[in-house]
Amino acid sequence: MKKLFIYLLILLPLAGSSQQRNGELVDLTHSFSQESLYWVTAKQFKLEEVAKGETEKGYYYSANNFETAEHGGTHIDAPIHFAAGGQSTDEIPLENLIGDAVKIDVSDKALKDPDYLISIADLKDWEAVNGEIATGSIVLFQTGFGKYYPDAKKYLGTEERGPDAVAKLHFPGLSAEAASWLIENRKIKAVGIDTASIDYGQSTDFAAHVALMTQNVPAFENVANLDRLPAKGFRVIALPMKIKDGSGGPLRIIAIK
Amino acid sequence: MKKLFIYLLILLPLAGSSQQRNGELVDLTHSFSQESLYWVTAKQFKLEEVAKGETEKGYYYSANNFETAEHGGTHIDAPIHFAAGGQSTDEIPLENLIGDAVKIDVSDKALKDPDYLISIADLKDWEAVNGEIATGSIVLFQTGFGKYYPDAKKYLGTEERGPDAVAKLHFPGLSAEAASWLIENRKIKAVGIDTASIDYGQSTDFAAHVALMTQNVPAFENVANLDRLPAKGFRVIALPMKIKDGSGGPLRIIAIK
Repeated sequence: MKKLFIYLLILLPLAGSSQQRNGELVDLTHSFSQESLYWVTAKQFKLEEVAKGETEKGYYYSANNFETAEHGGTHIDAPIHFAAGGQSTDEIPLENLIGDAVKIDVSDKALKDPDYLISIADLKDWEAVNGEIATGSIVLFQTGFGKYYPDAKKYLGTEERGPDAVAKLHFPGLSAEAASWLIENRKIKAVGIDTASIDYGQSTDFAAHVALMTQNVPAFENVANLDRLPAKGFRVIALPMKIKDGSGGPLRIIAIK
Repeated sequence: MKKLFIYLLILLPLAGSSQQRNGELVDLTHSFSQESLYWVTAKQFKLEEVAKGETEKGYYYSANNFETAEHGGTHIDAPIHFAAGGQSTDEIPLENLIGDAVKIDVSDKALKDPDYLISIADLKDWEAVNGEIATGSIVLFQTGFGKYYPDAKKYLGTEERGPDAVAKLHFPGLSAEAASWLIENRKIKAVGIDTASIDYGQSTDFAAHVALMTQNVPAFENVANLDRLPAKGFRVIALPMKIKDGSGGPLRIIAIK
């Protein structure tokens, strides 16, 4: 029995993490289309049909071109987006884009206050219930605003576009203090949120971006389907289009429950 | 000892698959830049700088727009690319893009013959050495041409562009017969190759594409770093940009050894 005990001690943790990987896949990505939401001053997604239908040679063929800003729809902010010398999209280590993750749900507060800022107290409240956020986690924030996508008026606070619309943006975000706390105390790999920006809509200094990106921590924005995730016990795989020298780019992000 | 044996019988396979997941990550993706290789008639990747540098408000900010054809650089062909009614990029089930994979190395033959077609015999030769390709595998083909990327003359057979350059394309590919054999006999999820197309450069009927895509089997093209993979015992995660109604799109593809 002693031998058995030792074998189990070695094998059970491996078996446990394997069960996670073999679990349900959840797509946390909004599709790109003309409905995709972009920053009010950014170029929007546009698909141009090049071919569609039977060819002279008898086979079917369809193909498209597209154009877009890097920062729209479900996308990544690479550190260089807000930090001189930060990693560009192609430089972010894969190890920082894949790993155990937690979800912090602040939707009770944020849905009542579109200018809500996620605080250090929100992080500590989560830990009081769920235990400490493990070192190197990916931290996803559910504000509840994801359910409004792609309704610009509800999701962004305005359906207007252009420079004058920036002041009319109202959606929740992460405070710079909470961002710094997570980096210093929990060495997080990355953050994600179900709004258009990790900073709240009324931000003018983008302090959460700066806090994260100067420490080479990327952010996932316009993340979908966070309501389908538990508070913990899942993994995230977030693979951006590999744009050389990119400041961000389209992101396919999934969870494994 | 009988009890121990039963425990090990249950736990060892789980431990084995877990070891895989905790292994080395290999990026199988070429970066997108003005050097990226595209089909000779397709729109190429173009990055346009929108902002770069310190702002008036004291923080650094960089952002870009880009435009591209769906089919260039490391990308996916969605089934609808060559099959009416086939899945579009956003419709491909995640389960078909993630899974155990094998690598079939035909570079000895293909590097000597740029018009080489991978045959059913090549598949059977691989199985004779490595065992049967498991049902539901992702199958990657290493022709050796990956090492030429992004040198168009060597990789595509021509550095010319435009309709007249199509006849000058010379690079290896998968035969339609081998594609059909893999679908019928091994129920594969997807295929990938380190050339510009799953059909060889001299193809005029794109028969491998048609064989695969009419069965909703996607193809990964311009895959990088296949020389860093073993013949088997690794997993692939291939996450395309989620383009609604897309016929393909930029793909971030990685392996876990």
